[in-house]
Amino acid sequence: MTERLNVAFAMSAVSLERVFPPARMSEIGQVAEICGILTEFASAQARAVLAKTDVIVTGWGAPFVDLRVLDAAPGLRAVLHSAGSVKAYVDPEVLEHGVQVSSAAAANAVPVAEYAVAMIVLAGKRALPIAAHYRAVREAFDVEAVFPRIGNYGNRIGIVGASKIGRLVIGMLRTYELEVVVYDPFLTDADAAALGVRSVSLDELLATSDVVSVHAPSLSSTIGLIDRRGIGLMRPGTALLNTARGEIIDQAALTERVIAGEITAILDVTTPEVLDADDPLFASDHALITPHIAGSMGRELGRLARSVRDELMRLSAGEPLAHAIDGRTLAITA
Amino acid sequence: MTERLNVAFAMSAVSLERVFPPARMSEIGQVAEICGILTEFASAQARAVLAKTDVIVTGWGAPFVDLRVLDAAPGLRAVLHSAGSVKAYVDPEVLEHGVQVSSAAAANAVPVAEYAVAMIVLAGKRALPIAAHYRAVREAFDVEAVFPRIGNYGNRIGIVGASKIGRLVIGMLRTYELEVVVYDPFLTDADAAALGVRSVSLDELLATSDVVSVHAPSLSSTIGLIDRRGIGLMRPGTALLNTARGEIIDQAALTERVIAGEITAILDVTTPEVLDADDPLFASDHALITPHIAGSMGRELGRLARSVRDELMRLSAGEPLAHAIDGRTLAITA
Repeated sequence: MTERLNVAFAMSAVSLERVFPPARMSEIGQVAEICGILTEFASAQARAVLAKTDVIVTGWGAPFVDLRVLDAAPGLRAVLHSAGSVKAYVDPEVLEHGVQVSSAAAANAVPVAEYAVAMIVLAGKRALPIAAHYRAVREAFDVEAVFPRIGNYGNRIGIVGASKIGRLVIGMLRTYELEVVVYDPFLTDADAAALGVRSVSLDELLATSDVVSVHAPSLSSTIGLIDRRGIGLMRPGTALLNTARGEIIDQAALTERVIAGEITAILDVTTPEVLDADDPLFASDHALITPHIAGSMGRELGRLARSVRDELMRLSAGEPLAHAIDGRTLAITA
Repeated sequence: MTERLNVAFAMSAVSLERVFPPARMSEIGQVAEICGILTEFASAQARAVLAKTDVIVTGWGAPFVDLRVLDAAPGLRAVLHSAGSVKAYVDPEVLEHGVQVSSAAAANAVPVAEYAVAMIVLAGKRALPIAAHYRAVREAFDVEAVFPRIGNYGNRIGIVGASKIGRLVIGMLRTYELEVVVYDPFLTDADAAALGVRSVSLDELLATSDVVSVHAPSLSSTIGLIDRRGIGLMRPGTALLNTARGEIIDQAALTERVIAGEITAILDVTTPEVLDADDPLFASDHALITPHIAGSMGRELGRLARSVRDELMRLSAGEPLAHAIDGRTLAITA
């Protein structure tokens, strides 16, 4: 038996337009009653909507869901977040009052992992430095002589952080004939074995990997995690891929080695978030700088909307949510 | 029961050094007797080796194995080719005399398919044009406004040619949430259904795909297969990936659309094989030109050596070869 739930949307107007354009909103309308579109929870109008709301769908730029919201929405059963980290949008105390919280973090992890795996393969092939070299010399050259570490077969890939995305990357790499090592201080040897990888120290990872891919959360403990000394451990020809957070890496130290042509940097995130116009990384053939595109973009936002719709359908059918978050996880997840 | 077979290697000195350096040669030596290293089959010295040879391992630059070689090697049971296409190296008549032929084409297809899948994902993300745009403007910009077709979820990927590599690409794409269509005049609807794809005309493929990836063999019938008219059918923002043969595409027509910024070209093969130094594709931000690196390079050559060793072990154990080629296939395979 399926129940028709009252759903209020709460997020920035831009997020609503990106993630729930009319076609997708109408798909939601097929499985639930859309009772309001909110950008805040305080006005009389918002409180009138909340009074009849069973489910709040939050998203980027959503107003904070706390106990006052719960007071206004006594029938609230669930907050379904249509983006990755829900931490900034929901007070953990809300969960203690029986409200379920779920996020689209799993759906949002997919494009990042796909992007990382693609870049790992191309880094192993040295595709970008080879294209730059070819463009510079414009004649035939002995690729294996100029790029002696070319090729993916048996390459060692170092994953920094066994996060949701890091684990997805590890899973996707399983079908490739690569050796995957992981650094994560919270990963037990048993967990690593279950993932089919070997847990190593950060130093060993940096010193021995052919491609290093960063998937650590941005916490005070991870700022500068890959510091100048760590950057120095990487062998010439190593590629460093960062789709997580810029501040995890000592970018000044990295830049020096990139400019020297020793390291290839594939950075989807930087410090600052938008590089200064005169940053030497922009001009280097050994750097590929993108403006934070690895996550859900364009049509990939449809996967977030689908994740929310699927959770709504489960809730309506009395089934457990697939991506429920407990209070403890909510408090610590980045 | 395992037999110890006499194996002669026949290929160019460069190929031998690349595919069978000492460490890999010694792995072969563990499963068979290496009775000679040949670069030709005509000298008295070569014939003395052939007289005791059970298996010839061929490779790039190998001398041609024909009936005269069989006369000199009456005990010859198999030719194991350590590269992709064996057509240029073995006379089909040899098979009629009970000699088995096997190739490492399956192993050689792996890096090409991995490369194509990685490029398909990055093309869907518009990663290279976005990086070029970011490098040009050097400030924050609305990525989805400038690149409205960004994102892989639900993207349509057009595979031209259900070849060994094409099928491997299709298999690898199965775990992605993409729509795959295929053009191959020899593919039946039942075959397409078994591959989980839809068979379409080349025109429909070009006009509707977000990324087109070419995996057709180089035959007289495929030269200019994607002609000026076909190039014209592709929508702005489409990416064209060629890891097969340059002459399949009308490169002049493609270049015009690339220079106009309408099409992204990712070309691992071109016409001529090495572009003229003043070719405008070198300078375009909408083209990534690599010098035929998608196939086995560097450490990926180890996969070819392993494939040969595995076939040798099967032969020694009296098991059927995993990659045997019949005479008909030998005659038509590119």
